[in-house]
Amino acid sequence: MIYKNFRKVFSLMKKIKLVIVDCDGVMTDGGIYINKNGESFRRFDVKDGLGIKLLNSKKIHIACISGSNSSILEIRAKSLGIEIIKKGVSDKLIELKKIQKELNYGIDETIFLGDDINDLRVIEAVSIFAVPCDAHEACKKKANFIGKKKGGKGFIREIVDHIFVAKGINPYEPLITRNDFEI
Amino acid sequence: MIYKNFRKVFSLMKKIKLVIVDCDGVMTDGGIYINKNGESFRRFDVKDGLGIKLLNSKKIHIACISGSNSSILEIRAKSLGIEIIKKGVSDKLIELKKIQKELNYGIDETIFLGDDINDLRVIEAVSIFAVPCDAHEACKKKANFIGKKKGGKGFIREIVDHIFVAKGINPYEPLITRNDFEI
Amino acid sequence: MIYKNFRKVFSLMKKIKLVIVDCDGVMTDGGIYINKNGESFRRFDVKDGLGIKLLNSKKIHIACISGSNSSILEIRAKSLGIEIIKKGVSDKLIELKKIQKELNYGIDETIFLGDDINDLRVIEAVSIFAVPCDAHEACKKKANFIGKKKGGKGFIREIVDHIFVAKGINPYEPLITRNDFEI
Amino acid sequence: MIYKNFRKVFSLMKKIKLVIVDCDGVMTDGGIYINKNGESFRRFDVKDGLGIKLLNSKKIHIACISGSNSSILEIRAKSLGIEIIKKGVSDKLIELKKIQKELNYGIDETIFLGDDINDLRVIEAVSIFAVPCDAHEACKKKANFIGKKKGGKGFIREIVDHIFVAKGINPYEPLITRNDFEI
Repeated sequence: MIYKNFRKVFSLMKKIKLVIVDCDGVMTDGGIYINKNGESFRRFDVKDGLGIKLLNSKKIHIACISGSNSSILEIRAKSLGIEIIKKGVSDKLIELKKIQKELNYGIDETIFLGDDINDLRVIEAVSIFAVPCDAHEACKKKANFIGKKKGGKGFIREIVDHIFVAKGINPYEPLITRNDFEI
Repeated sequence: MIYKNFRKVFSLMKKIKLVIVDCDGVMTDGGIYINKNGESFRRFDVKDGLGIKLLNSKKIHIACISGSNSSILEIRAKSLGIEIIKKGVSDKLIELKKIQKELNYGIDETIFLGDDINDLRVIEAVSIFAVPCDAHEACKKKANFIGKKKGGKGFIREIVDHIFVAKGINPYEPLITRNDFEI
Repeated sequence: MIYKNFRKVFSLMKKIKLVIVDCDGVMTDGGIYINKNGESFRRFDVKDGLGIKLLNSKKIHIACISGSNSSILEIRAKSLGIEIIKKGVSDKLIELKKIQKELNYGIDETIFLGDDINDLRVIEAVSIFAVPCDAHEACKKKANFIGKKKGGKGFIREIVDHIFVAKGINPYEPLITRNDFEI
Repeated sequence: MIYKNFRKVFSLMKKIKLVIVDCDGVMTDGGIYINKNGESFRRFDVKDGLGIKLLNSKKIHIACISGSNSSILEIRAKSLGIEIIKKGVSDKLIELKKIQKELNYGIDETIFLGDDINDLRVIEAVSIFAVPCDAHEACKKKANFIGKKKGGKGFIREIVDHIFVAKGINPYEPLITRNDFEI
């Protein structure tokens, strides 16, 4: 099921209706900022955020599945209009299948964006397993597509742009948008 | 209207009286640091800040237009003496034209510093659309000038230095300055 | 005692039962984020965190010894299941020997991950002194192994993966895990 | 007064008894992290911190002069044992001369570490004006010494190591130290 050939991946992207993303290392750069009271910050990327809004605007579903139990993901996801958020997940494959069933999407319609070995199990249930260029080696070995961008530094946007091109939508069009959330 | 030739851009810079900057990805590096209470931090650059103060010292107007609704921009802008701050803006072109009308500046006197597709619409109303080297590809394609520096990492200062040179002002002069804001 | 030859280090790794890590510059990227009230944040890495959990899962002991007196280390260490945490340590060699005695491990079973000259004294009591590629020159000169990764950016995980391979464990296996701590 | 020749700078370093550092862009990487309440964080470097402690241990004076009015500098400086801290300074040359007079040090005994045009005026009063590799071009042009390291990422330590070598002190010696401040 491994296709590093871009033409092949491109043809698979045409059918994508559900984009599932990991949080740490994909939506973020993998850093966790911690203080002595156990409070933490994570760093998200504005261009990735715009990519997620672009998916929403074209009615492509987006969901987050994270092994972390942090509520930070929920804050960021909601500010971007992501409705399906699963945190503290042990087995991402089970959770991914639940989402597919709920939304009635199959393997061919699903892409997963991951970066570490706890993402590997989902491979059997998606048509594309895409990873950023700074993903763990195990992920880069098994990925259908390795992005040019790093996690939390434009990788999600890169994938969104490719999906758009595959679907015949121009991702370079001037956009009118604003963010109502004060984040 | 696309001039990547530096001489041409340089001659256009001579006439600039209004510098309009986007916030995320231009004044910042595009990162948003978020905690579980929805509080956030953004990262600004000291050398960019000094660049904005240099503009002020030469009576070149500077304004910020951001799609984000965050008050962080206001805090940073005020600490640098920027008086015109528009946040939560959907259509940057409309807002930019309002500022031009208010200050009585035309296309030839305006430069916009942007980094993503929600900045593209302003191109028709400015003489230079400049972008950092890590801008979205759509912006780099349409830009009159692509900086050597990244957004939030000296790009604004780079543009200020070029404007100064174009106007016959030496941007390398020793400076006496201080910041009264405790930021 | 200096072996930069990877085969030699690899054979030494086979015997490792105790991994001792420095905090600043090894678990973190060496940055300390400070505000005007003296509150601080440090940045940890998710992939390093997963590496530490992998060590735990194979009953390889992990301990932290830090010269810093910050409680941030304790917060991060506990969230990863690290039980032995020594902070505000002047002489890391003495502390390391105490840990070895307590757990009944010898030199051959101990690896230390450090990055600066206050880590150098431990060299006599460990079989491998490993450092990230951005360690201080003094450490890189004396190290048995210099990682490809930077401190706080995957270096710990890199070492864990090497230890696993040396012990005949596949570090690329899909993993089912979750984090109960809300960090 | 510009000597980029390392031998010359090295001989000048032998006489240094007073190291004066700028804050933003030298002690930090030039980033200011701001939230909507105007609270801010700055990022300091652990290896630079150890460098400052090394200076203290050899009775070489260290002072900070910053144009910024932020108290963050005071917090960091005090945690490292720096006693002379001047913040919100407009004219760094005047302040530098005051420090020299107070401590009875001359030009030959003073080095300044800066990174931007508001540091340039001090050049006439120091024997070495050293800048990090990411300093503003105006500073790199006028500097006696350009470091290999970036500001806030080991540049101060790099200079300390050079001063030590120039004075016949080995900067690679194992060190026993701890930090009592909980930062």
